[in-house]
Parts: sequence; structure tokens; C-alpha cells
Amino acid sequence: MTASTAPTDRPSAPRFGHRHLLGIEGLQPTDISALLDLSENAIEVSRQVEKKLSTLRGRTQINLFFEASTRTQSSFELAGKRLGADVMNMSVASSSVKKGETLVDTAATLNAMRPDIIVVRHHAAGAVQLLARKVGCSVINAGDGAHEHPTQALLDALTIRRHKGSLQGLIVAICGDVLHSRVARSNLLLLHAMGARVRLCGPSTLMPAGVERLGCDVFRSMKDALDGADVVMMLRLQRERMHAALIPSTREYFRYYGLDAAKLAYAKPDALVMHPGPMNRGVEIDPEVAESTQSVINEQVEMGVAVRMAVLDALAHHLPNGDAAPGSSER
Amino acid sequence: MTASTAPTDRPSAPRFGHRHLLGIEGLQPTDISALLDLSENAIEVSRQVEKKLSTLRGRTQINLFFEASTRTQSSFELAGKRLGADVMNMSVASSSVKKGETLVDTAATLNAMRPDIIVVRHHAAGAVQLLARKVGCSVINAGDGAHEHPTQALLDALTIRRHKGSLQGLIVAICGDVLHSRVARSNLLLLHAMGARVRLCGPSTLMPAGVERLGCDVFRSMKDALDGADVVMMLRLQRERMHAALIPSTREYFRYYGLDAAKLAYAKPDALVMHPGPMNRGVEIDPEVAESTQSVINEQVEMGVAVRMAVLDALAHHLPNGDAAPGSSER
Amino acid sequence: MTASTAPTDRPSAPRFGHRHLLGIEGLQPTDISALLDLSENAIEVSRQVEKKLSTLRGRTQINLFFEASTRTQSSFELAGKRLGADVMNMSVASSSVKKGETLVDTAATLNAMRPDIIVVRHHAAGAVQLLARKVGCSVINAGDGAHEHPTQALLDALTIRRHKGSLQGLIVAICGDVLHSRVARSNLLLLHAMGARVRLCGPSTLMPAGVERLGCDVFRSMKDALDGADVVMMLRLQRERMHAALIPSTREYFRYYGLDAAKLAYAKPDALVMHPGPMNRGVEIDPEVAESTQSVINEQVEMGVAVRMAVLDALAHHLPNGDAAPGSSER
Repeated sequence: MTASTAPTDRPSAPRFGHRHLLGIEGLQPTDISALLDLSENAIEVSRQVEKKLSTLRGRTQINLFFEASTRTQSSFELAGKRLGADVMNMSVASSSVKKGETLVDTAATLNAMRPDIIVVRHHAAGAVQLLARKVGCSVINAGDGAHEHPTQALLDALTIRRHKGSLQGLIVAICGDVLHSRVARSNLLLLHAMGARVRLCGPSTLMPAGVERLGCDVFRSMKDALDGADVVMMLRLQRERMHAALIPSTREYFRYYGLDAAKLAYAKPDALVMHPGPMNRGVEIDPEVAESTQSVINEQVEMGVAVRMAVLDALAHHLPNGDAAPGSSER
Repeated sequence: MTASTAPTDRPSAPRFGHRHLLGIEGLQPTDISALLDLSENAIEVSRQVEKKLSTLRGRTQINLFFEASTRTQSSFELAGKRLGADVMNMSVASSSVKKGETLVDTAATLNAMRPDIIVVRHHAAGAVQLLARKVGCSVINAGDGAHEHPTQALLDALTIRRHKGSLQGLIVAICGDVLHSRVARSNLLLLHAMGARVRLCGPSTLMPAGVERLGCDVFRSMKDALDGADVVMMLRLQRERMHAALIPSTREYFRYYGLDAAKLAYAKPDALVMHPGPMNRGVEIDPEVAESTQSVINEQVEMGVAVRMAVLDALAHHLPNGDAAPGSSER
Repeated sequence: MTASTAPTDRPSAPRFGHRHLLGIEGLQPTDISALLDLSENAIEVSRQVEKKLSTLRGRTQINLFFEASTRTQSSFELAGKRLGADVMNMSVASSSVKKGETLVDTAATLNAMRPDIIVVRHHAAGAVQLLARKVGCSVINAGDGAHEHPTQALLDALTIRRHKGSLQGLIVAICGDVLHSRVARSNLLLLHAMGARVRLCGPSTLMPAGVERLGCDVFRSMKDALDGADVVMMLRLQRERMHAALIPSTREYFRYYGLDAAKLAYAKPDALVMHPGPMNRGVEIDPEVAESTQSVINEQVEMGVAVRMAVLDALAHHLPNGDAAPGSSER
């Protein structure tokens, strides 16, 4: 995927054996590593002056967003364009959903326009999977309800791996609104698959039922959760949670669960500070911590474009008439 | 327009003698056939891996939608991109219309940006024609009020022709809200021009005044209208009509005018079921009929992209400095 | 920047010594002339059939609009696409601003996606400058509050120069809501820099405090302001001003400050009539005057695309690894 090498010249390109990317669930560690390796090349492309490949030339990518998300949609849009795809954005605001069209009809309609890849964000868990069953092209889950957000977990993993060399054996504390977070869920699955130890921390009202069965250490206190951690991953607090009285107030929340310098001091001195963005400064994170040298928050955004380029590229191997080996079982 | 042939290598490309496509009205049967023939090539392009031509490279296509329409706009966007055009979407929501700018000013402004083609949807019948008179480029009507929607009629014709070989002599029943439907109007004009026999069916409140002078057989009962029909074309029922009390209730409407298996049985056994979408399932059509083997509803969507590629391609012959014969009277 | 010449083949391309274009303030007359000269080439490109260069191929241009503006955004979009850039639109409606993200976070996020150029419109004066300090790429101000709108002033200057040969010594009357107008402010700076004499005219409620210190002649009467003028530049009246009771009524406003044939007769017979659009016909300008032979309003729109192509092209010399001379102090 480097600029100087045409796609067909990549004998060593990592193989990815799936037609869709619907979640981290179902991926093997080798799949994850393959995508991260491919992302490393993609980083270089975006750092060049001419950040443009022809990998997806003539392919049609549709970004179908039932939920607004500037940064995720932009990231996918740039990723697709930098690979040479024709990218079309469809947002819910202008969509036929308003006219009462069902998700299944939308899927069938889009499919008939012969796209190669549909990137979908939807407010309902499972909606993306449903859509994937109705189309002939590849589908990427860009976040579905509280279910999964696989490219977020992959970009987080890429960011961590580049700093720590490997995920194996790392202690990663995921803090905040775990209950409603697809980011937490996808990260937990990926981190476990890659041999990291995951700690979850947040108020009990924001913890899923049966959290103790997720194979993580669960904490109510940030001090305990961060003690000796290699990575501190803060989650975004949805304003809606406040209205729902799941937390007493943002000030109170910040006091107990907001990441400030004092709490961060419990983690390892070189612990990474992460946040999927957009941040609520002063609610889940102190602005100074967000801009400290330990913060890799902006780097996560850059890795996001790279990971999405890698995913698009990997799925292209399995597009109809793509360059996957003939007879591949998934085609 | 096939991928392997450059535009200039098309000695047999059908000629199209118009600068704009404002409606089916005014087209000759040879014009219609030429566009359908050109569409056949376009279908193949979209079915390829690299669905990209350079026919419109460096041309500017503006999609100017005063009324939201995901599927029509997307179809034109993909059509333009697959022909290599630079496509710019302008929707009413973000447009200067809100600032009180008149349609004529909008036309003059866009024209000054030197586009080659403007695709326009507007809520008022005649607005597209007005705009076409004010610009130097080609204009395509993507639906204007209850007036015309020519590319819809063309895609319907293409779909029918591919199944039935020809439109000549076919019996086509157009059913539902004929009164407000530009789809019905454009289809009626095209089908008559191509020698099909058109039947109209719907409640009297949804039939235009003077319908008997349109040269169609008019029916109040679906049984009579569908009897021996080759094609059953259902129209979309606008929810607004219900509020306007033009129909008693959607349930009642479905009983009398919704297409279900029982009513469809009156048509020929191989009759095609068509719908311009988006469907109101259970209102104008039974979901099972919509997904039956007789339904070509998704195929219509695919043909939509192809027909729009053909129209864009045909008009490009008449763009300033296009490859139309020198001295052509319309240039 | 002509179609037949590759960017690297331009030994005589005017040099532009700035990384950003944040305002007319700070530009030297030679900078302005260089941009206008470059625009002349760009005009030709847009008048060709294949209006496409590869100057910005593989570069990423983000149009970040916190305030809706169809014509300015479209103009920048077409300019970027015609230079071969990948253009991504981000409008406030779909942006994370709604989620409470600060401007600085937005800047940092976008910057991490490695764009080459960000075009920004914002409702607050100074916001674009703030954003420019937080990013590594080039920033173009597409209008910030009542502060500056440099590309508007440049396109106005280009339009005038093409008709009058030079700006030197011309009398330019800027009329209407000077108080709230970034267009007036940028034009005033540019016109003064290029040796024109500027007159300001409007009701006292729409004149900035200390207007007499701006180095212009200030008038309350259109008759006096237009007397012998070479150019009459009308400003758009924001409807909000009426609600704020800054003017008595639009009818009254038109009587005293609207440009009609009678008032225009005070200017030179070949005086140019200009308006940045969109026009409020019958409020600040008589429709007949707007469409008269003296009006260059549509030409301004065409010049807008050309000027934006020139600015994008000029800034590209200073993009990381662009073709600016090695060791250039600004890189």
C-alpha cells in the first residue's frame, strides 16, 4: 500500500479472510495483526505530499450514517479518497429513512447501485449486521448502538503498539461510561485477543450488568484502576446520561472519574492517555492532561485514517473480482 | 461508453439531438431508443470492478436539489462519478434559497461557475425549465413538482425492455396517486411514444381532472385495470395525501388499491411489478409482492444509475466544445 | 496554471510568501498583484471543456464551514476539484461542535488527519486566525464574523482590474451595511493598498464607530457618495439588521440607500455595479440595475472560482514538500 508499489505488486500484503468488518468479535489475533501491519504503510501515505493511491480506483464506497459523526465519517471519507475510491456520503438527515423506508429497503436500494463497500453507522446495535446480510458488497461497521466500533479499537491498538511495541501483557484501564460504550466493548475484545489485561472503572450506574463475567478486573476507584497501568483509556460521557440522572453532576463526575494529573500519577510514568473524542474537557478529562506529553489523543485521530485505509484495502481483496486467490471460500 | 473504448472511438454511439433533458415531452421515439441503447453499455460499466470511465473527465456536474431525495441524488452522483465528472451536491438546506435568493439568481450564480451539467429537482412544476433558460450549460430535470421526472420513466422503460424485449403493444397499468405523480406523467408520455397501452387506476380523488382525455383507459377497480396486464407500476402514496383527506385511511387504501397477491393474479402470470421507491410497505404494496420473483423493484434502481450515465453521456455530446458535429443547430 | 503546462514548468509563476491567507491585512501590493495575475490563468482553465489540472493532485482540502454559505463553499469546492485536490466538506450542522467540542479541539483533530489546506468560515471574528495557529497546514479565511473575507476582496479586485485595467486612482463607493460587513473591511484594505480611493456610504446606524479614521471619505447620502465614482459596490443587508431595528423598514432603506437607476446616474457613465450576493432584490439593489449592462455581478461569481484556484495554487508552493525554494523561511 505504499505509493511506489501498485496493489498487484504486493506479494507480502497481509491476507485478511473476511468479507465484512462488523466487529472485533470473530477476528483472530492474526487478522488484527495483519490489519495493524497494513496500517503502518497507510500512515506513510498520509504523511506524503501526494497522499493518493489507486488501490480502490473505480470502486464505489458509500458512507451511510444514520447517526451524525463528523470525525468518523471524515476519517472514512479521507481514507477512501486517498485510496482512489469514489466516495459518496449519505446522511440520515437527507435520507429516505424520513420517508418511512425500512433499513432493509435502504440496503436493497444501495446494493442495486453496485457499491463495493458500505460504511455504516447506526444507532441500533445489530443494525449493521442485518444490513450486511442483505447486500452483495463489503460492509464496515462504523459504530452500531452500544455494540461495536471495530475501527476505533483497531486505531487504539495501532496507537498503543507504536508506543509500546506490543499489546501483550499491557495493563489497560478503560474508564467512564462503560455501559453505553461500543468503544469499550470493541477495545475489550481486541485487547483480550492480543493478550493485554483490561481493567474497567466507572460508577456502578455506568457499568453493564454482569460486568464481572467479562474477564476484566472491575474497579470503582480510579486510584485502584490506574495503579501501575500502561494505558489509560478515557471514554466519552454522553450528555444524555446526565439528564438521565445516571450521574449526579458533571462536577461531581469529574471529581471521582475525571482524569487529572493527580489520578494519572497512579499509572506508570510513561502511561499513555487516550480518548476517542470528541472530549468533554473538564468532565471526563482535565484539559491539561489532554494536552500533556503522555496524551496520544491527536495521534489516535491520525491512526484512524490509517486504520480505515488498511481496512478498506484489506476488504478490497475480497471484493467481486478483487485480487483474492481464485476459489477463496468466502467469495 | 464501455470501459475498453474511449469516447472518441464510438462511431456507432447513438446521437441525441437535445441540449437539455427537461421531460419526456418533446422526445422522439428514436431519442428514447438511443438513450436506452446507451444505457445498456452503462449497465456493464457498473457491473465491473473498476466502474470508472473518463467520458466526463474535467466536466463539472452540479446536483441542485431543492427537494431532498436520497436515491435520485445518489443515483446521479454515482452516475457522474463513474463517468469521471467532478460532481458537486447542493441541497436546499444549505442553499442561499433560505437567504431569499430567487431561482433565477441561483441559476445565474451557478452558471457563472461554469458547470457543464446541472441536475435539478424542484418542488414546483416548470421551475427546471425556467432555470434551463437562464444557463449556458445542459440541464437535467430530476423531478419538478407534479410535472415530469424523465429519468424515472427512462429507467422504467429500460427495465421493461430488458424483460419484454420491446415496449410495443404492452399493457401497462399505472396505479395509485396519479394526480400528484410526475412519475406517472413521464411514464405515460414515454409509454405512449413507444407504442405501449397505458391504463390508469386509482381512487377518483387521486385522478387528474380530464384524465379521460389523456388517451389511456381509466379504471376505478384494480381488478379491471390489471386484467391481462404485462406490467403493474405502483405509485408512491405521499403521506401528505392522507392528511389532506384524499384517502380515508391507509388500511382502506391498501384494501382497494394496494398491490397484493390476489390483485396481482389478475395480471399476466409473468407481469412485472414495479415501484419507483421508496415504498410504503403495506400501503400501496404488500411486502411479499414487493419481494416476489415478479418484482423488478431493485433492478429499477440499478437501471437508474445506468440511465443517468447514458443521459449524462448523451448530453456531453452537446456541451460546449463537446464532440457533436460542427455546425449542429443546437449548439 | 494553464492546462498545457505542468506546475513544475512554471518558471514565471508569481511567488506568494505566506503560508496562510487569513486576511488582506498583512498582504503587500505585490502579493495582491501576484494572486490576481495567477487568477487570470485560472479563468482560462474554467472556460475550457476539460477544466481540470493536477496541481493539487493527492492534496487534501477541507472546507470547514461553521456558517452556511452555498456560494462561497461551492466556489472553493469547485476551485479545489479543478486543481485535482481531494476536497472534503464539513459543515457545522453535522459537526462535533454540537457535541461541545471546542474550536481548538476541532483544529487539532482535523490537523491530525493531515490535510494540506483548510478553508474556514466562522461566525466569530478572529476564529480563523486562532485555528491557523493550531494546525500544521495552510488555512484560508472564507469569512470570519465582521472581520475579513479576503477572497471576496480579491475577486472584486480581479473583476475591477479586468474592466478598468488597474485599481490605481479609481473611486470606489462601498454602500450599505458597512458596520457588519467583512466584505467592506477586506475591500477597503485591498483597495487602499492598491491605490484606489474608497468612499463609504450608509445610514449612521450601520457605520462603524470611528469610521472617519479609516482613511475613507464617509457619506450619508448616496448622491454624494456616487458622484463621479468608477465603481459602486453594494453590500448585502442582513435581514437580522431589520429585526434589530437598525433600519426603519426595507422600503425606507431602499428609498435612501438602494441602488436604482436614478442614484446610479450620479456615478460615471461606465461605472461598474457590484454586489457580493446573494442579493436582496428591491432592498439594497433594484433588479433592473442588477441586470443592467453596468452590472458585473455574475462576473464576480466567475472570478470567485478563479481567485480561489489562484489562492490554493499559491499556497501549495508552501505546503510541506511543496515546490517552494528549499530553505524558504516560512516552511
